[in-house]
Amino acid sequence: MRIATFAGGAEGAWEITRIEAITGATLDVAPRLSVFEGGDPPAPTSWCLRGASSHIRYSTRSDLTRLAALQPELGRCAATSAALIPMSKSLAWWELAQDERQAVFGASSRHAEIGMDFLPAVARRLYHCRDLGEPFDFLTWFEFAPEHEAAFDRLLARLRSTPEWRYVVREVDVRLRRRAPSR
Amino acid sequence: MRIATFAGGAEGAWEITRIEAITGATLDVAPRLSVFEGGDPPAPTSWCLRGASSHIRYSTRSDLTRLAALQPELGRCAATSAALIPMSKSLAWWELAQDERQAVFGASSRHAEIGMDFLPAVARRLYHCRDLGEPFDFLTWFEFAPEHEAAFDRLLARLRSTPEWRYVVREVDVRLRRRAPSR
Repeated sequence: MRIATFAGGAEGAWEITRIEAITGATLDVAPRLSVFEGGDPPAPTSWCLRGASSHIRYSTRSDLTRLAALQPELGRCAATSAALIPMSKSLAWWELAQDERQAVFGASSRHAEIGMDFLPAVARRLYHCRDLGEPFDFLTWFEFAPEHEAAFDRLLARLRSTPEWRYVVREVDVRLRRRAPSR
Repeated sequence: MRIATFAGGAEGAWEITRIEAITGATLDVAPRLSVFEGGDPPAPTSWCLRGASSHIRYSTRSDLTRLAALQPELGRCAATSAALIPMSKSLAWWELAQDERQAVFGASSRHAEIGMDFLPAVARRLYHCRDLGEPFDFLTWFEFAPEHEAAFDRLLARLRSTPEWRYVVREVDVRLRRRAPSR
């Protein structure tokens, strides 16, 4: 099953160190985050976000070949810091044709290239949730060593300054620290 | 809510006249089909397929402009025939990059152009279900007047002869006749 659930609450392997609303409404404060496969939370939660690890929507074969050479796996021992960034884009974005969204993502915003500048420091996995009827359109999960947090902040600053981000209507930045040996 | 449910069973506004497995396993025989918004069937069903009416995945702005000029709405009085075509594509398809899938859909298979040759006779709506964990990847719903069924069969024959259809691993063709005034 390709559904992952991110549950903020009293339990979980990740300690939530900060929740910051970048655009739109925030998420409630919660001390811990648990991440698990499938859709049903094991315990009562403050909030619970689900997403599907789906197929590639914009990356070209050339992007994927470069990514495969550089992209680290999740779960590296040194990567004890993480970020969960739930985000939604506007109806104007979703009503664009594929070639229009591709142009904003690619030539105009260079989204894939910006991400690649921070590899292999920052491991990343994207989950899609708009079709699931969830409150956000995407969840992105990032893992990195604590000494790369400043680089991760530069990555976000560059992405947030792109034309693509003009379509972002809600974005929350949840920072985490691993408390248990595994996710 | 953008989830639609297609339920085969004893009830529904559409009489199922034929169920034919084109590729892979068929669906069980059922006398009626009900189509409704949301995900929960109102009565016991023989089978129940859900899909999300999602954003455009391959069509360009030029395609969408031509479609907007030609494409009829669902629910026309004369369109008392319908087809529901649930379909899945192979893992090889889903592991292609966006530019590779776009090339198969567009330049090599001319999927959008083939569909446009049958407008405005055949109204169509596509639902995505792979991310929902459903048994099929897509559901396509077509409506047309009974006298256009032969044209609809030609549309399917042309699509099934394209390179894109080499990736289809399951396809069922469910034909229907409207029994009640509305869906």
